[in-house]
Amino acid sequence: MSQTAYRTHHANDVTEELIGSTVTLSGWVDRRRDHGGVAFVDLRDASGLVQVVINDEEMARPLRSEFVIEVTGLVRQRPEGNENTHLATGTVEVVAEKIDILAKSAALPFQVSTSLENESETQLPSDDVRLKYRYLDLRRPQMHKNLLMRSAMSKAARKALDEMGFTEVETPTFIKSTPEGARDFLVPSRLNPGSWYALPQSPQLLKQLLMVSGIERYYQLARCYRDEDFRADRQPEFTQLDMEMAFVGQEDVIAMAERVLKDVWASAGYEIQIPFQRITYKDAMDKYGSDKPDLRFGNEIVELTEYFKDTPFRVFQADYVGAVVYSGAADLPRRQFDGWQDWARQRGAKGLAYVQFGTDGELKGPVAKNLSDAEREGLKAATGAQDGDAVFFAAGAREASQTLLGAARVEIAKREGILKKDEFAFTWVVDFPLFKTLEADDDDVAVGHSKWTSVHHPFTMPSAEWLDSFDKDPGHAMSDSYDIVCNGNEIGGGSVRIHRDDIQDRVLDVLGIGEEEAKDKFGFLLDAFKFGAPPHAGIAFGWDRCASILAGEDSIRDVIAFPKAGGGTDPLTGAPAPISDEQRAETGVDYDPDEDDE
Amino acid sequence: MSQTAYRTHHANDVTEELIGSTVTLSGWVDRRRDHGGVAFVDLRDASGLVQVVINDEEMARPLRSEFVIEVTGLVRQRPEGNENTHLATGTVEVVAEKIDILAKSAALPFQVSTSLENESETQLPSDDVRLKYRYLDLRRPQMHKNLLMRSAMSKAARKALDEMGFTEVETPTFIKSTPEGARDFLVPSRLNPGSWYALPQSPQLLKQLLMVSGIERYYQLARCYRDEDFRADRQPEFTQLDMEMAFVGQEDVIAMAERVLKDVWASAGYEIQIPFQRITYKDAMDKYGSDKPDLRFGNEIVELTEYFKDTPFRVFQADYVGAVVYSGAADLPRRQFDGWQDWARQRGAKGLAYVQFGTDGELKGPVAKNLSDAEREGLKAATGAQDGDAVFFAAGAREASQTLLGAARVEIAKREGILKKDEFAFTWVVDFPLFKTLEADDDDVAVGHSKWTSVHHPFTMPSAEWLDSFDKDPGHAMSDSYDIVCNGNEIGGGSVRIHRDDIQDRVLDVLGIGEEEAKDKFGFLLDAFKFGAPPHAGIAFGWDRCASILAGEDSIRDVIAFPKAGGGTDPLTGAPAPISDEQRAETGVDYDPDEDDE
Repeated sequence: MSQTAYRTHHANDVTEELIGSTVTLSGWVDRRRDHGGVAFVDLRDASGLVQVVINDEEMARPLRSEFVIEVTGLVRQRPEGNENTHLATGTVEVVAEKIDILAKSAALPFQVSTSLENESETQLPSDDVRLKYRYLDLRRPQMHKNLLMRSAMSKAARKALDEMGFTEVETPTFIKSTPEGARDFLVPSRLNPGSWYALPQSPQLLKQLLMVSGIERYYQLARCYRDEDFRADRQPEFTQLDMEMAFVGQEDVIAMAERVLKDVWASAGYEIQIPFQRITYKDAMDKYGSDKPDLRFGNEIVELTEYFKDTPFRVFQADYVGAVVYSGAADLPRRQFDGWQDWARQRGAKGLAYVQFGTDGELKGPVAKNLSDAEREGLKAATGAQDGDAVFFAAGAREASQTLLGAARVEIAKREGILKKDEFAFTWVVDFPLFKTLEADDDDVAVGHSKWTSVHHPFTMPSAEWLDSFDKDPGHAMSDSYDIVCNGNEIGGGSVRIHRDDIQDRVLDVLGIGEEEAKDKFGFLLDAFKFGAPPHAGIAFGWDRCASILAGEDSIRDVIAFPKAGGGTDPLTGAPAPISDEQRAETGVDYDPDEDDE
Repeated sequence: MSQTAYRTHHANDVTEELIGSTVTLSGWVDRRRDHGGVAFVDLRDASGLVQVVINDEEMARPLRSEFVIEVTGLVRQRPEGNENTHLATGTVEVVAEKIDILAKSAALPFQVSTSLENESETQLPSDDVRLKYRYLDLRRPQMHKNLLMRSAMSKAARKALDEMGFTEVETPTFIKSTPEGARDFLVPSRLNPGSWYALPQSPQLLKQLLMVSGIERYYQLARCYRDEDFRADRQPEFTQLDMEMAFVGQEDVIAMAERVLKDVWASAGYEIQIPFQRITYKDAMDKYGSDKPDLRFGNEIVELTEYFKDTPFRVFQADYVGAVVYSGAADLPRRQFDGWQDWARQRGAKGLAYVQFGTDGELKGPVAKNLSDAEREGLKAATGAQDGDAVFFAAGAREASQTLLGAARVEIAKREGILKKDEFAFTWVVDFPLFKTLEADDDDVAVGHSKWTSVHHPFTMPSAEWLDSFDKDPGHAMSDSYDIVCNGNEIGGGSVRIHRDDIQDRVLDVLGIGEEEAKDKFGFLLDAFKFGAPPHAGIAFGWDRCASILAGEDSIRDVIAFPKAGGGTDPLTGAPAPISDEQRAETGVDYDPDEDDE
């Protein structure tokens, strides 16, 4: 279907086979050069570029960058020496016989041409300008490629799921507010003044209802909404590839998910090996100081708690001491190590203790002098460091120290420049705790009124060995849940779900959600469980993150057609915006039931 | 991937090839019969049914309808004479060796069994009960089939679009309120107190921006939102298969859309012929009294304005007189014709004039005596009626009269029982007016401040012959737009869009949308048009309606997993619902900028 009202061919169709034919093309003026009274225009459309030669000065005069034109002309071989080997159409050109200007373009706020040599990201304007003129930013080849790649990803995932017998089901986005660990976006109901819909943080409860409904394999590329404070790379709305299966256990979901990811990565030209490795949550924290370890490189954290158990150094007389090696860093200038102190303090730590093993074998650095001779002596062996390396230490509370060392480990790898964007290290993280206590800096919201909150969500099945006792010892209970991690990013997670109302009641009890509140918030799910709920389990992938990793982009903004800027605003459309008094009146948010009674 | 933690096979896999094998199955107890101390259980899963024989009374005793069980047993041939030819597994049965009850079921509010003979819709409980226990309703075979069919439809559409070079792009649902003819649902922005997002009535402006962005072929199964008063079969959120193409005209879009529909209908087993017929808006009104004519049958409206131009009958001395024939209805009892009067009055008409051509050739009915001899004489020929037929008349304003006759035409066909659900009559309706005046009973909202509003939307291109003059004669200007109609339902519509800001400005002018307001509401689109917008056109299908037609369901509720009841409420979850004071405070709807200043 290349031929349409405005063209006989796409730009990229114009190859040597068409030499001698007259073609009509449509697209944008990507670049124009003038040489000896002749104009050379690179015509760009969605397929690519082709060179148009315009001998008629009249015809060429008005053409500017990003004008939309329709060109009819004869395809001919380019003169020898004028070939462009970078282009699929680089051996031919179209000699214009007729040019219609379909639309003009004002002067551009930034360059979008695809044919500029030496194009580099550094030429890009600020994010806000890119977002304000998103329609221009999306014309850039990298962004165009990202959108095409995302479309191919979704196609690959759907094909894999279809082949595994999944049914795509669309679930509603006007739902009831449910406790899932973040704030809901809310929509007032005009027809039910004083009442509100919530937008789903995920289709979690709905997909569980589908399992109770006898849809045994469900999937959906689902829009999800979380009203969180903006930080890092979050969007108020995002996409999840959501899947759920009945009559399965954890292994079934893992095998299914690996197949999907393999096919999705293949759609972008990458072959990945499955099955993926697995690591327990505890090992991930111990070795990598993260529940989403980047396994593109080793450099594991070494625990030294035992090693320093009799240390004279007060700082290391702690619940936990650990270390991470910074290879070949011993001779870095002092100000770099000072910089690491700032880096650590930004993460809430007091600093980052370190030693340096000089290339001469001498131990230096501020910590060195505080250690005992024996400690100094054995430190190289204990940490695995070599002469010429530096070693960072963290001491104190176990989790906080490990997290700091984990972050240092990744930061070291970044500075070493060893993190390749086209190398993908997947791992399952398994054996998560069922509950946790809410942390101060956590964006999550307590779902109940106890000190315990769910690590995943309140519908996660306790692991078999904890089924009887999870409510007696919530601090140690484990769950049947699993995260999938790629290159240090959690790209998905899931769990076996509770399908029995008795177990669900006990979990809600631990979370401090009373019977009344439970009934009010998700009584419908507990009710559904009374009518024959199958065992079920599922997983969801963060689709924007998967796309950004696959595209080699740091930000998910670069794989979303129209993302929001920080603060949830859209520099392009001006959303969100004030509404009129009439609109406000209609929403019903000012509805007063007492007034209505009069 | 049949084998999972809970089964070796699906129910439907159990055929004669497995005789002698031990299988493990999981599913629901569809029905249980007891006969001579032996229990026969139909085990149901997503694939189908298989009979399980339980010889052990202990094992059988607890089993009730809709219990979830895991059965291990030996597959054997059924005893001769016990085969069930209705089942794929009807020649075999599984002799249970072990049964685990995975979940129990309380007594059911209504029967869901798939194996009941004589199941009929009349056994269904009320819509509210069906919706409250949606997870049970969805277990019924018809509903299960509907969801599977819808999934297959989406797959077929995506495949067709992919083959035609379309890119799937997800567009945001947090957008700026734009004028599209209905009320927006609004979402307060906590991070921008006093400001609101709107949920899209369609991705119209966003897909136009994608065209400006160089994505030349876009599609999306898009969730859309319209805050309309509930009537008939509407849902506050619905799904649209949304498509847009650059460098195309009307014919390109029509050819593309026909290909998609052909493949979608094929996915449900129906072969439809393309290209579809076309009818102009004017002809559709004249012949069928509707802009969405049901062409499964003929029985066209006959215009009699000219015929009655000198009539002595005051009622027929009108701008328009038309008639529709009711075949073989001459001898229906009087009370049926009285019923038609009520029917007409419910539609806002004064009544429905009629005559009867007796089988004896005599003209009867209340209108007959008011006509001149000549009018009586020629009436059979003029209307095309036969002896034994009745004829309904409408006289008065043209459009209202035609609409009444069009509705009568369809109602007649319904009473005649000639409308088959598995017969599909498609037609394009083309040559629509560009503008209309808003009607009192119209749910649409005026987008501007003039008497004119858009028939499609403000971004619709005037047809070529009206490009210069549409704003001088808005009442007669035509547009490049097209609706696709199937069996009397508008299942889709689209248009060539305006891609030039000068034309868009003039259209907004007719609509009474001032420069300031235009800039405020969709200045971003007008801005985008300044930077090289390609000619573009598109279409969207109402996906829920397509599914309901294809499933043979009258209501779109039966092809939506979790639809809302009337009034936008969900009897299952209780949405929408009041929110807590804390939630309300967080939404920012009570934000007072003055207070903030203090």
